[in-house]
Amino acid sequence: MTDVLALAQALLACESVTPARGPVFDVLEAALRPLGFDVDRFVVGEAPDGPVENLLAVRGSDGPHIAFAGHLDVVPPGDGWTSGAFEPEVRGDLLYGRGAVDMKGAIAAFVAAASQVDGPGTTSLLITGDEEGPAIYGTRALIDRMATRGIRPDACLVGEPTSTTRLGDMMKIGRRGSVNIWIDIPGRQGHVAYPHLADNPIPRLIAALAEIEGIVLDAGTDWFQPSNIEVTDITVGNPSTNVIPARATARLSIRFNDLHRGEELGRRITAIVQRHAPDAIVTPKVSGEAFLTEPGALSATLATSIEACTGLVPELSTSGGTSDARFLAAVCPVVEFGLLNATMHKLDEAVSVADLHTLTSIYADFLQRSFAR
Amino acid sequence: MTDVLALAQALLACESVTPARGPVFDVLEAALRPLGFDVDRFVVGEAPDGPVENLLAVRGSDGPHIAFAGHLDVVPPGDGWTSGAFEPEVRGDLLYGRGAVDMKGAIAAFVAAASQVDGPGTTSLLITGDEEGPAIYGTRALIDRMATRGIRPDACLVGEPTSTTRLGDMMKIGRRGSVNIWIDIPGRQGHVAYPHLADNPIPRLIAALAEIEGIVLDAGTDWFQPSNIEVTDITVGNPSTNVIPARATARLSIRFNDLHRGEELGRRITAIVQRHAPDAIVTPKVSGEAFLTEPGALSATLATSIEACTGLVPELSTSGGTSDARFLAAVCPVVEFGLLNATMHKLDEAVSVADLHTLTSIYADFLQRSFAR
Ligand SMILES: [Zn+2]
Ligand SMILES: [Zn+2]
Repeated sequence: MTDVLALAQALLACESVTPARGPVFDVLEAALRPLGFDVDRFVVGEAPDGPVENLLAVRGSDGPHIAFAGHLDVVPPGDGWTSGAFEPEVRGDLLYGRGAVDMKGAIAAFVAAASQVDGPGTTSLLITGDEEGPAIYGTRALIDRMATRGIRPDACLVGEPTSTTRLGDMMKIGRRGSVNIWIDIPGRQGHVAYPHLADNPIPRLIAALAEIEGIVLDAGTDWFQPSNIEVTDITVGNPSTNVIPARATARLSIRFNDLHRGEELGRRITAIVQRHAPDAIVTPKVSGEAFLTEPGALSATLATSIEACTGLVPELSTSGGTSDARFLAAVCPVVEFGLLNATMHKLDEAVSVADLHTLTSIYADFLQRSFAR
Repeated sequence: MTDVLALAQALLACESVTPARGPVFDVLEAALRPLGFDVDRFVVGEAPDGPVENLLAVRGSDGPHIAFAGHLDVVPPGDGWTSGAFEPEVRGDLLYGRGAVDMKGAIAAFVAAASQVDGPGTTSLLITGDEEGPAIYGTRALIDRMATRGIRPDACLVGEPTSTTRLGDMMKIGRRGSVNIWIDIPGRQGHVAYPHLADNPIPRLIAALAEIEGIVLDAGTDWFQPSNIEVTDITVGNPSTNVIPARATARLSIRFNDLHRGEELGRRITAIVQRHAPDAIVTPKVSGEAFLTEPGALSATLATSIEACTGLVPELSTSGGTSDARFLAAVCPVVEFGLLNATMHKLDEAVSVADLHTLTSIYADFLQRSFAR
């Protein structure tokens, strides 16, 4: 049986700032092979968004197929750690190290759970080295690889840190989508004393943004909070008090629920801006579409496992940022559940050692119940 | 009799990028003393807005007192002149050099006119070395000096280049005022996925600016075009697509006619901004109030001189930027008339030699008619 703490420590000892390659995957492969997993590691992509290493491990070939998904890359540690960010250390009840909760701890728990429950069914691990970076050659490449090899899970559990104050208080059944939109309005520079000889782009930008600020995208749904538009930047950058500027730019960030598609929102904003400024250049970039796994058998099974191991009934949430679950939702129903997110991306990221064991139990229980269905 | 071309060349040969001191004033003093002027040169102010040299020359003590006002400092020449910016050269009909039209040429014409017409009345020259710079210790200091010495002109002619396509086509009887206003709206930084934990200052800025854009200050007056508000800059400067920024700033430039006062406009904008953003910091800075010398005897006399020497009836205008006339208007009625402004502040600034002679005639005729009144 895999020791979840020892495996977590071994993973945390590998420097794996995004994109991750090599040693940290060696550690994971060495833990999986003795458990009977077929391990397929592959490197894809080129600079600037690659190369990226991914690992696809499968054990079994029939019965229900449950996939665990996650990432071995981590965000840069930053300065000011009490102990080394890549020198895992247990102090009191906590194991410290970059990636402790996001999400090498959960990956160790995947493996430990798989060492406890082997069938009747298929278990796989979909592990990328690029979730924190551009994520162009990460989980998307894993999905392509699975398609090529004819591997099709029935359900997927993503191990992102979804718990907030106690392990088990929250799981995710969906995520909002995200689109960033760049607005660039040209004008003609001139002197403020002669405004008729110039063409100030700022009034058009203000009018467009004022109309955009007035948009109510929706009132939320049963499972999602209302979609939200934030203007995150405006830049003219004109240092001269006497000069009418030649260009005005802004940037929006829209987080939207499953009533919308990123592309459609981009078109809608473009139309508004270009009505005020016909020659504006509007560039939407969709980071991810919204997805929802309607509450049902999958979320109920996971909730039962969580309650059995923690006594808590998890909230079914769709809050927060995006995750790789947005890609996996195109393959099969997806839920997300993992450790506490309080220290993720922060200095002295740490996981409770007790939580590592409890999470292993939850994942094992979930495997067992899923295979029994 | 002073040779206007020779004096203009001597003045142009002195490097006198703002603030001007020393040699260029030596040249002017040497031209004035033989004509009987009492010459008072003084240096005032400290860094960063000083020291600045000024010259107050007076001839005569009774009869109508006519003052000519102007500046010997010039804006930096920039690179790319055909001949040296401070090596005056006549090519064809044009005399080239930085300051040719703005406004050493006019100052040479002041002196040449005074050499042709001496009384019955008092003639003075109010010449500063800082009109193109901060202008803190320039014409304002000259006005203080005159007050201290009990010198009080009955009328003042500022020699700024007011002509547009032909010498004599335009004179100025007023100028719009100018106020710049800085707007700084604080907020609270946060992640776009959790807008309720942040406080985006941009919507408040957009709402305030949208309301400001809707303001119609006035419809213009008999002598002034409508007052105008330009938003000249907006800066948030937030590089992160996922971050709600902590601060949003903007800057306005208002050019206003004599229906308004700069301070009152500052208060009005402040009230609008703070209604949308109570903790906004709004900082108005008045560059100059509007002034108008109602058309009357002074402008009629100057127009008569212009028509007598050029055949043109000058337009009475209040257009363009500010000038030192805004300070002098507090002392006595002020009009502005000078050379063509097409090349001012540009490469290869140049004045027509014929225009130098015609301008001398106009100024001399104006002196004569003014003394005869
Ligand atoms: Zn993560
Ligand atoms: Zn000037």
